[in-house]
Order: sequence, then structure tokens, then C-alpha cells
Amino acid sequence: MAPAEDGPQPAPRSSSGRAKRTLVAAGAGRPPCCPKYHKAVELIGRRWTGAIVSVLIKRQAMRFGEIAEAVPELSDRLLSERMKELERYGVVARNVRPGRPTRVEYELTQMGRDLAPAVHELERWARRWLT
Amino acid sequence: MAPAEDGPQPAPRSSSGRAKRTLVAAGAGRPPCCPKYHKAVELIGRRWTGAIVSVLIKRQAMRFGEIAEAVPELSDRLLSERMKELERYGVVARNVRPGRPTRVEYELTQMGRDLAPAVHELERWARRWLT
Repeated sequence: MAPAEDGPQPAPRSSSGRAKRTLVAAGAGRPPCCPKYHKAVELIGRRWTGAIVSVLIKRQAMRFGEIAEAVPELSDRLLSERMKELERYGVVARNVRPGRPTRVEYELTQMGRDLAPAVHELERWARRWLT
Repeated sequence: MAPAEDGPQPAPRSSSGRAKRTLVAAGAGRPPCCPKYHKAVELIGRRWTGAIVSVLIKRQAMRFGEIAEAVPELSDRLLSERMKELERYGVVARNVRPGRPTRVEYELTQMGRDLAPAVHELERWARRWLT
């Protein structure tokens, strides 16, 4: 797979018509869409991930159950999957606080907090244009 | 389905554990994630859609083939689907210019152009954090 393909979402099932272009082939013409940006959209644009990041931007540290409450319609299974993915990418840190019972909290890393301007701009757009 | 569910992506297959929360249930606790923002992420975050919008922001009007060249690894079938969806949402306008042969061009509407700040912030983030 070419670099732009390795986002977290599954590849499209099949393509009809013209064969798929490669980054090299497209680069031979005009500059192709930035692969890093494409990867960012694929990560943050995943179903629920943008919502989870938005919720974490508004709070310092949250427990699993608090995130679950703040993002309606999301199952625990899916939330758990998304949190692991965000942790793997370095967007979220999982902190285990000692004590009885131990308290597990999630918070955005510096990389995650740096998504705030993009999230705020998209929120502004959504408020303005989506009814 | 609750309002936050009606994004363009298919609903998750099944949920295990706790039953799905509804917007109403979540709203009874702390304020849930903004449904409009969630819808925006689901639209713009769809596989390839963010890339297509990014390419159209950089150009005035583009033909189908030009967008296809600029977004590598995307099949004509999928590009066509995404363009129709963006048109339906009012993000993209499809203009047929008279002449022989007729020339079909796509450009962002005012709603689409207003996505530029969010796209630029995400591009900045991607350049800084994704390797």
C-alpha cells in the first residue's frame, strides 16, 4: 500500500473503471494531496474519534465512564477501541493513579492538545452551516 | 436513530456491554458532545472527503479528472460517490459550462470555502506531528 493508504480505516472494497493511481503517478502531474494531512483526516475523522477528542479538549483528565457519558450513542466496545487507537498514535495518554481502587484517567498529550485549533474551527463551521 | 447518528457513515455493527446511550440520557448528566460538530466530523472525516475538500480549497474550479489526479489512490467510482455527497450537503457545486464538448467543473460553495480554516489547522497539525 502507498503511504496515503495506511490510515486507520479499512481500504475501499474494490475500484471499478480506471486503475488506482499511485502517489508517484499523481506526483508526476500536479502536486498530490498532502499524505500527512490525509492521514490526519483518516485518524481524527474516524467515526466517534473527533467527538472523543473534542470532549477531552474541554476537560483536563477524564475517566472512561465520563468520556462514555459525554459522547452519546457510543458503545463501550467502540469507545475502548478508539481510546487504544488514540493512545497508539500518541494523541491520548492513559494514566493509572495509585490508590484503592486504582483510578484510570485519560488525557490529551501535547500532540492531542495541539488539535484544539482544528477542532474549534470545525465546531465554528458546524454551528454556522449545519442545521 | 438519535440526531448524532445520522452522519454519512454506516452505524457500528453491534455494541456489547452497556446499552447505547441516547442524547437525552447523556444530556441529563453533563453536556454531551455537540451533535453538529459530530456530524461535521462524520462528513468531512469520511475516507477521501477531507482530501477532496483540501484539493478544491487550493484551486478555483476543477474538472473530475483533475480532482482524480490530485487525490492519489482514489478510484473514479469512489470519487464520484464522494462528489455527489458533497454536492448533496451543499459543500460543492457542479457547474456545466456550455460549449462543445460541454465542460463540467466542480467548485466549493461558500459553505465549502468556509472549511478552509479548519483544513489549514489540520494540515498544520499533520505537518507538525505526523511523520
